[in-house]
Amino acid sequence: MRDAYHDELDAITDQLVELTSLVGRAISLGTQALLSADLGLAERVIDGDAAVDALRERVERRTVDLIARQQPVASDLRALTTGLRIASDLERAGDLAVHVAKLARRKYPTGAVPPELQITIRRMGDVASAIAEKTGEVTATRDAIRAAELEADDDVMDGLHRSLLLTMLAPDWPYGVDTSIDLALAGRYYERFADHVVSVARQVVYLVTGETLRA
Amino acid sequence: MRDAYHDELDAITDQLVELTSLVGRAISLGTQALLSADLGLAERVIDGDAAVDALRERVERRTVDLIARQQPVASDLRALTTGLRIASDLERAGDLAVHVAKLARRKYPTGAVPPELQITIRRMGDVASAIAEKTGEVTATRDAIRAAELEADDDVMDGLHRSLLLTMLAPDWPYGVDTSIDLALAGRYYERFADHVVSVARQVVYLVTGETLRA
Repeated sequence: MRDAYHDELDAITDQLVELTSLVGRAISLGTQALLSADLGLAERVIDGDAAVDALRERVERRTVDLIARQQPVASDLRALTTGLRIASDLERAGDLAVHVAKLARRKYPTGAVPPELQITIRRMGDVASAIAEKTGEVTATRDAIRAAELEADDDVMDGLHRSLLLTMLAPDWPYGVDTSIDLALAGRYYERFADHVVSVARQVVYLVTGETLRA
Repeated sequence: MRDAYHDELDAITDQLVELTSLVGRAISLGTQALLSADLGLAERVIDGDAAVDALRERVERRTVDLIARQQPVASDLRALTTGLRIASDLERAGDLAVHVAKLARRKYPTGAVPPELQITIRRMGDVASAIAEKTGEVTATRDAIRAAELEADDDVMDGLHRSLLLTMLAPDWPYGVDTSIDLALAGRYYERFADHVVSVARQVVYLVTGETLRA
């Protein structure tokens, strides 16, 4: 039988899963806005960040209240502290999705992504939202094997990021400094998004197994 | 007379001040490494990040222990939760100083910063370390007037960041995409560093006055 304390822990986990889902949706829609120069969609992602911040606040308050009321034992305390870090990582990931959307808005009605890089950016967006989806599953199920897959997804993201930079550094790259700077920043947003979200999965695995997947 | 609880709160504040000082030093040395293409200095900053991470861990553990042991009242709980957020912001600021140092290392033995932008980057480094110094003071003294000055410093940083980008977008900018991308990323590191550290001062003021300085 479950007690109120463990019900509360489960509720916190549910909120973290929901937060992961919100930021996954944000990076997916932000990417769509960026690729299709869709101002309305960009604004929606930007406005949607308030919900991410509010949910992070709720998770934080609930966790700290639980610590204060229940004086948990060391291992539970570790889980709760990790939850706070996870909420913080997810909020940053949400900010990065907003940065993508803001780039789309700033370049409107011109697009920020030239035809040569549409596929790369689309794949970066797809990998980012797949990472968020899997991390949500890992958080809900604590499945360490599924978490290990995320390391491969993170490598794919790093490869796409490198490929983006190499394309722009090629001698026949036809665009100027302006476009290159925007795309370099966009590349960094995706790479950082993946980093924060994969770090969430790593922290979940560490809680379950006590093993660090990768430094 | 002080009780053990308030001594513990003071000790946490001292650690946050020390953390601010560590990241201020890191951005200052990282900037020096970047401007003078000094590999040894860059490595020192990169290696020094372990101390930042360790101190952040100690602050976090101490805070959570205090919450669990003392079951603080609402206002103290808010202060402690804010302390956790501050520690997280400072750790990110430390990461950004490391990114500056890693850029210096990656471009070694060539410098990353051409003569045209040496002064701008130097000023960005100076403003960043001044912001860290003042934020340390604000954290120690809770001086809201000093904190307000930081908003002006943050505006200076934003101005330097814009000037950096505009220099690179000028038609007579003689460098290629490679240099421009590196400098755009460097500019972002400084701007984000300032943002995280100024946010610390804002959170301290909010704790003291209940007023938000600026959104």
